[in-house]
Amino acid sequence: MPITGKILVAQGGGPTAVINQTLAGIVLEARKFPQVTKIYGAVNGVEGIVNEAFLDLTQETTHNLEQVALTPGSALKSTRVKPDKAFCRRIFEVLRAHDIRWFFYIGGNDSASTVQIVNAAAQEAKYDLQAIHVPKTIDNDLVLNDHTPGYGSAARFVAQAFMGVNQDTKALAGIYIGIVMGRNAGFLTAAASLAQIRPEDGPHLIYLPEREFDLARFCADVKAVYERLGRCVVAVSEGICDKSGTPMLAALQKNVEYDAHGNLSLSGTGALGDMLVAQLKEKLNIKRVRCDTFGYLQRSFCGCVSDVDQHEAREAGEQAVQIALSQQVSGSLAIQRTGDYAVDYRLVPLAEVAAKTKLMPDEFISPAGNHVTDAFRRYARPLLGTALPSPAVLRAPVVEKILNKEE
Amino acid sequence: MPITGKILVAQGGGPTAVINQTLAGIVLEARKFPQVTKIYGAVNGVEGIVNEAFLDLTQETTHNLEQVALTPGSALKSTRVKPDKAFCRRIFEVLRAHDIRWFFYIGGNDSASTVQIVNAAAQEAKYDLQAIHVPKTIDNDLVLNDHTPGYGSAARFVAQAFMGVNQDTKALAGIYIGIVMGRNAGFLTAAASLAQIRPEDGPHLIYLPEREFDLARFCADVKAVYERLGRCVVAVSEGICDKSGTPMLAALQKNVEYDAHGNLSLSGTGALGDMLVAQLKEKLNIKRVRCDTFGYLQRSFCGCVSDVDQHEAREAGEQAVQIALSQQVSGSLAIQRTGDYAVDYRLVPLAEVAAKTKLMPDEFISPAGNHVTDAFRRYARPLLGTALPSPAVLRAPVVEKILNKEE
Repeated sequence: MPITGKILVAQGGGPTAVINQTLAGIVLEARKFPQVTKIYGAVNGVEGIVNEAFLDLTQETTHNLEQVALTPGSALKSTRVKPDKAFCRRIFEVLRAHDIRWFFYIGGNDSASTVQIVNAAAQEAKYDLQAIHVPKTIDNDLVLNDHTPGYGSAARFVAQAFMGVNQDTKALAGIYIGIVMGRNAGFLTAAASLAQIRPEDGPHLIYLPEREFDLARFCADVKAVYERLGRCVVAVSEGICDKSGTPMLAALQKNVEYDAHGNLSLSGTGALGDMLVAQLKEKLNIKRVRCDTFGYLQRSFCGCVSDVDQHEAREAGEQAVQIALSQQVSGSLAIQRTGDYAVDYRLVPLAEVAAKTKLMPDEFISPAGNHVTDAFRRYARPLLGTALPSPAVLRAPVVEKILNKEE
Repeated sequence: MPITGKILVAQGGGPTAVINQTLAGIVLEARKFPQVTKIYGAVNGVEGIVNEAFLDLTQETTHNLEQVALTPGSALKSTRVKPDKAFCRRIFEVLRAHDIRWFFYIGGNDSASTVQIVNAAAQEAKYDLQAIHVPKTIDNDLVLNDHTPGYGSAARFVAQAFMGVNQDTKALAGIYIGIVMGRNAGFLTAAASLAQIRPEDGPHLIYLPEREFDLARFCADVKAVYERLGRCVVAVSEGICDKSGTPMLAALQKNVEYDAHGNLSLSGTGALGDMLVAQLKEKLNIKRVRCDTFGYLQRSFCGCVSDVDQHEAREAGEQAVQIALSQQVSGSLAIQRTGDYAVDYRLVPLAEVAAKTKLMPDEFISPAGNHVTDAFRRYARPLLGTALPSPAVLRAPVVEKILNKEE
């Protein structure tokens, strides 16, 4: 007789534009299986589990779930708590008390670690539990995944933002720096390159955490572009580090803030951008230097989403349920590219994903280390989805001068 | 016999999402009039006029103009130069040399001043010129206008941004501040209120340049919301001033920057936000305090536009041409609300618009001075356009606790 019991789903880490698609995929797919007695959602991730803060998603309407799926942010709320062994024992006790037999945790590599520890606790107690990590991160830094749900939509936001500021700096010349999220991996910053349609379009320079950031080199790069075009648009990752590996931001902030996973808090401040602006103004003697730190807008903006990302995030949730309910396995769901462009999903061992970070491969970074390659553009373009805007420019001929005629 | 001659169109000040709609409206409408021999576009506003940097827009395809209309930024490029009398004489000499009889300048109140001075120079020389200022500004601060093209789309961006960060702070609790553009008028910051769908939604507090900003009061307001909801989302105008009328940003920056119009450069820096974050962290002892400065994204983001704004920006261009070509008048085109919701256009004297700033009326600001009223919401809602996103939340019932049952 197959096991019957409850499903528990939770969301961890930073919200994305499509994490609720995965939630909807899990809940709606799970309703098809008679052995599932209830579908619970934990409020605030693992924190909610130990506090038994559960919503009974069995009693959520299909229509509202579809609306929630279109909403950015984590509908079940999230957490940055990193469970230790004791915490995981409490999680496990709660799962057992509520007869939960399938646990789905939507999150990044930290969430994969949590699933791994909880799964180990269940195995130790010989309790039948299937624990599945479902991928989610705008950073796109999970190993064994071609890419992760959430990345495509955030990348689309970054590309559309740079399309706009590129037009803006054409109109009012100067230097513009956009600071993009990404602790260790430069994938999201690199997506700025997809704003480049014509040869003169920005971003003209892209700085990634995968390459050492050198201030003098940065100033020289900007100067060269500015002298050539009269303007310069730059994409900079918030995670750029100096040659010692120290984040540039850490060197700047008085009160550096770390989360429970030991990660430096990089977002929510304009300090890095303001420092780069000050450097350029001082070294290059250029007056109009502006910087925006895209911050939370790039992961939560309501109304900028990749349809491809939506589709995959939904299907990842459905796939996780299909695999968990038809096979007796735990693991981490991974997205793999099988064509140009097509994907497939498979389950990989939790230990291979947990707490590991995928960086931009060398082939995606230009030899000079200050831009991306066509290989990256080819990789990233389908992830941003269809109907990407395409800025147009005037092509009217120049009128001959009368008063200012050159001799 | 009616006058024949050329049209010159230029764009001034900060770009918007729909300023190219107005350009397309002017060019395409002007093609219907046989007395128009050519349609020129000045590159970089008045700077381009004195340099005779003109594009012959008569030779631009209709299809490309329609694509340019959909592109944010100023397709003719812009300028911050404020012409003095001598500069205006040079402008006038160029207009006369090129047989320009109709001059359309798309811009804000500074651009209206420029049109006024050029018009006066033409009158003085008894040269037949019609000079029309066509409104444009995301700040929505032109007098005699119900609202201005550009505002609706920027307001939509701000509302959609706050819809998103509102979900984000629900997922990971804390304090979030979004810094919104607006030198003297709070209209754009106030648009954050249109993100509020449910009673608990942010922004919970809105600070406008129309009211004195008091740091202690601000901290107390945030504390009260945070204690009630466990989170607080705040919209702050970049132009907020202390009781002496000094912009908070000016007090913070070492190297304050002014443009040719004597305006303090407020954007392109995270300094104001970082100062507010530091204050809250220090005074309230709350760890997770984040701030984003929306910066240039709110006026140039590619892919967030109000259809109502697009329509009106286009029609403003068409109306300007219709009026100028059928009547012998100069002036400033103004948008007036004639219904709920409908608008009409009329020409008003340049002197009444030039260099004047419209502020938020008292009836739009809450008595406590830290939010907006329903009168503002009713005023602003139609300007943001149709199909505004509407975030959804889960409504599933809470599950009874087993292990943590309360005694």
